[in-house]
Amino acid sequence: MGRLTVVVRERWIAAVCGVLMSCGVVRGVAAESTKPNIIVVFCDDLGYGDLGCFGHPTIHTPHLDRMAAEGLKLTQFYSAAPVCTPSRAALMTGRLPIRSGMCSDKRRVLFPDSGGGIPDSEITLAEALRQQGYATACVGKWHLGHLPQFLPTSNGFDSYFGIPYSNDMDRIAEAPKGRESFWKPESRYWNVPLMRNEKELERPADQTTITRRYTEEAVQFIKEHREEPFFLYMPHSMPHVPLFRSDAFAETSRRGLYGDVIEEIDWSVGQVLDALRTHGLDSNTIVWFTSDNGPWLTFKDHGGSAGLLKDGKGTTWEGGMREPTLVWWPGTIAAGRASAELGTTMDIYATSLTLAGGSLPADRVMDGVDLAPTLLHQQPSPRTEVLYYRGTRLMAIRKGPWKAHFMTQESYTGNNELVQHDPPVLHNLEVDPGEQWDVAADHPEVITMLTEAAAAHAATVEPVPSQLEIPLSKK
Amino acid sequence: MGRLTVVVRERWIAAVCGVLMSCGVVRGVAAESTKPNIIVVFCDDLGYGDLGCFGHPTIHTPHLDRMAAEGLKLTQFYSAAPVCTPSRAALMTGRLPIRSGMCSDKRRVLFPDSGGGIPDSEITLAEALRQQGYATACVGKWHLGHLPQFLPTSNGFDSYFGIPYSNDMDRIAEAPKGRESFWKPESRYWNVPLMRNEKELERPADQTTITRRYTEEAVQFIKEHREEPFFLYMPHSMPHVPLFRSDAFAETSRRGLYGDVIEEIDWSVGQVLDALRTHGLDSNTIVWFTSDNGPWLTFKDHGGSAGLLKDGKGTTWEGGMREPTLVWWPGTIAAGRASAELGTTMDIYATSLTLAGGSLPADRVMDGVDLAPTLLHQQPSPRTEVLYYRGTRLMAIRKGPWKAHFMTQESYTGNNELVQHDPPVLHNLEVDPGEQWDVAADHPEVITMLTEAAAAHAATVEPVPSQLEIPLSKK
Repeated sequence: MGRLTVVVRERWIAAVCGVLMSCGVVRGVAAESTKPNIIVVFCDDLGYGDLGCFGHPTIHTPHLDRMAAEGLKLTQFYSAAPVCTPSRAALMTGRLPIRSGMCSDKRRVLFPDSGGGIPDSEITLAEALRQQGYATACVGKWHLGHLPQFLPTSNGFDSYFGIPYSNDMDRIAEAPKGRESFWKPESRYWNVPLMRNEKELERPADQTTITRRYTEEAVQFIKEHREEPFFLYMPHSMPHVPLFRSDAFAETSRRGLYGDVIEEIDWSVGQVLDALRTHGLDSNTIVWFTSDNGPWLTFKDHGGSAGLLKDGKGTTWEGGMREPTLVWWPGTIAAGRASAELGTTMDIYATSLTLAGGSLPADRVMDGVDLAPTLLHQQPSPRTEVLYYRGTRLMAIRKGPWKAHFMTQESYTGNNELVQHDPPVLHNLEVDPGEQWDVAADHPEVITMLTEAAAAHAATVEPVPSQLEIPLSKK
Repeated sequence: MGRLTVVVRERWIAAVCGVLMSCGVVRGVAAESTKPNIIVVFCDDLGYGDLGCFGHPTIHTPHLDRMAAEGLKLTQFYSAAPVCTPSRAALMTGRLPIRSGMCSDKRRVLFPDSGGGIPDSEITLAEALRQQGYATACVGKWHLGHLPQFLPTSNGFDSYFGIPYSNDMDRIAEAPKGRESFWKPESRYWNVPLMRNEKELERPADQTTITRRYTEEAVQFIKEHREEPFFLYMPHSMPHVPLFRSDAFAETSRRGLYGDVIEEIDWSVGQVLDALRTHGLDSNTIVWFTSDNGPWLTFKDHGGSAGLLKDGKGTTWEGGMREPTLVWWPGTIAAGRASAELGTTMDIYATSLTLAGGSLPADRVMDGVDLAPTLLHQQPSPRTEVLYYRGTRLMAIRKGPWKAHFMTQESYTGNNELVQHDPPVLHNLEVDPGEQWDVAADHPEVITMLTEAAAAHAATVEPVPSQLEIPLSKK
């Protein structure tokens, strides 16, 4: 039986199940019996407090608020690193970046002069889903290596449209010095390439239209692949500084330029969900919306807000790694709920692969867990632990509500000294999400439990070379 | 024509209009042509960030989230003072407390040894609505004077059930000293009376059941008055410290005791809205949910969170006076929207009276504006200005997005010095809701505009004696 036959049969089953589900007959079970489409919208430096549905007063996000109202809001969902490259590596591999070498204490992300990237030995989510018969596309910022062997099309994606690393790289000599170039950004200041598959399409990328063009690509991909299961990974370049938005969103937000940018992303999500509705795919597509790390606070009003959480990007305080997360799958995931159950971006890997009918690689340590029972059936999360890495260092660990910081280090400006804590700093994150009151003295038994859990985790980590420290010339 | 006849006729019109409205024929217009019931749920020390729909990660508020999804979320809505008595006076009079004398720099609220209260010359919202044919009830904490002439039943309310001042007053000598009594509170530590109309019903009030009993009273009132227009004012005693909740909510919240308390209030709101649905009153009742001032941060995890806003109760930073506000009126106020249009609790007075068919008193300065066009028809708010008083001092003023602090003073512990600022501290609150970046140096023209607006306001204020400084013995 050819792939098309399988697909057609599955679509027919899905249609029948859709009718039954809408009658409330086989809800949930039916949805799990076919291969849902999977979309992951991944922002760049979005803050926990930057959406209306997460409490921002002046950033207007009606499409994301509707997505929340029709889906599930996850309030304790984490990235696996507080900066870009390791965070994306974790999402794509379902593993902590310490296992793939996609982190470093010397260079926090990949740069245009880097020669490393995602190792060939890793099985990306795109590769795993392609094996399950999925069409795959990456539309947006990659940042897992820009040499040909590291690009999306070498790592399981049928197609790629986007920029290979951050939009603040390749700054030209003529750009205003220091932060001046960020306050009134122009695309030409950053000579970042826009790529189609392995080729440069445009350089410098016109960043003012980039969110719009990503959106058009995504909508086109959905349309073209509506008859087969697909995986669309959509890592927006925004709201990473320098901030850009299209003319249609110029000075439309009360929140200023940053708000304009978020409101264009909000529009973009609306377009994607509308495309799913238009093609009748909404009941068979799971859509995730989250971010790679917290807001870049040192850029003041050009950075976002972590809401009630402490600090932001670069740190292992909650503001650095807890992400505003939505999951949408009408008819399968109950509408309008919020859940404080634990999850991480690595669980997107495990959940997606399970929903697609695959199973996790058995030959390596996997850090993601399948959240489907939690998302679909409101079961307690199988995840009980969150690990907070900064570079190669395990700074903190969370189990249940408890988080112990063994070391702390502030963000990339100001006091940046690594501080060791003995006893660790302890917070009950469910009572004290803002990490204001150290309760270590009251809970020595919790400190012991978390210290042992950190040691047990450390025993699973095997040293691998850092990909981020490989210079371009050596490859 | 007797009152009953009028009422019956109006209810019949309302029923017909309800049918037409559900057909989308006369939506809005019809609703405005009859007298809607009015409910104001008013919390005590609730933080801007303490509800799920305002971004709290672990306080579970499904009923309030549903109220938001079915109604309107107001993200820039203010009380008129950062502490209890003046804030409540403003809501009840539609006027700044400086005009009624319900504020002071010496005693920030009324105490059991106070002899003052809301002046007889003030026209309370209950008195004004009663004139329009409304049945009126106050269920909860009053705090506008506990002598007979100041009680709710002397100020326009047909009935009263609740405590006359704060739940942390009348502390008995046997209670643990200092804050110890708050950390493990017992009702008997505070000898606060629970009153029915003018009589003490119970003393000390059993605070563990107080939210539940308020709810039962409210539901009963709705049932009894379902055939006539009514005004129900429901100022909860909670979440003011000491924190209490009924057994049904003991240790149910991930957020600890404070979360239990909010989740019981959430349940209470669900009961009230359900009662409206049960009696077919939901399409003819406008329900407000807000708070008197921000969270009492010095009580640590027994206080709430202002989310991304700065500071809390007692201060004129945003966390002290911006309130998490919902407005619900199914079929008349569009569902699931958020609005950043300006409003204050004094506008509840003006809006309610207008909706009830009355008009504002013409013999005095009124500070509230009618928000109905904003709530019902998404018009820009007629309010362009917010005044931030602490006691009798105008600390700050907001016009549009701009807020100038002429003076600042921290909360009630730590450094409590009054600091004068020349030039004033300036924030663009829509770009910078957390009041992080003083931009006074960049906008001298805005400083001039706000300084002039403050002077223009000051010219409208006439000195009146402070009610809060009158001792009990003198009356």
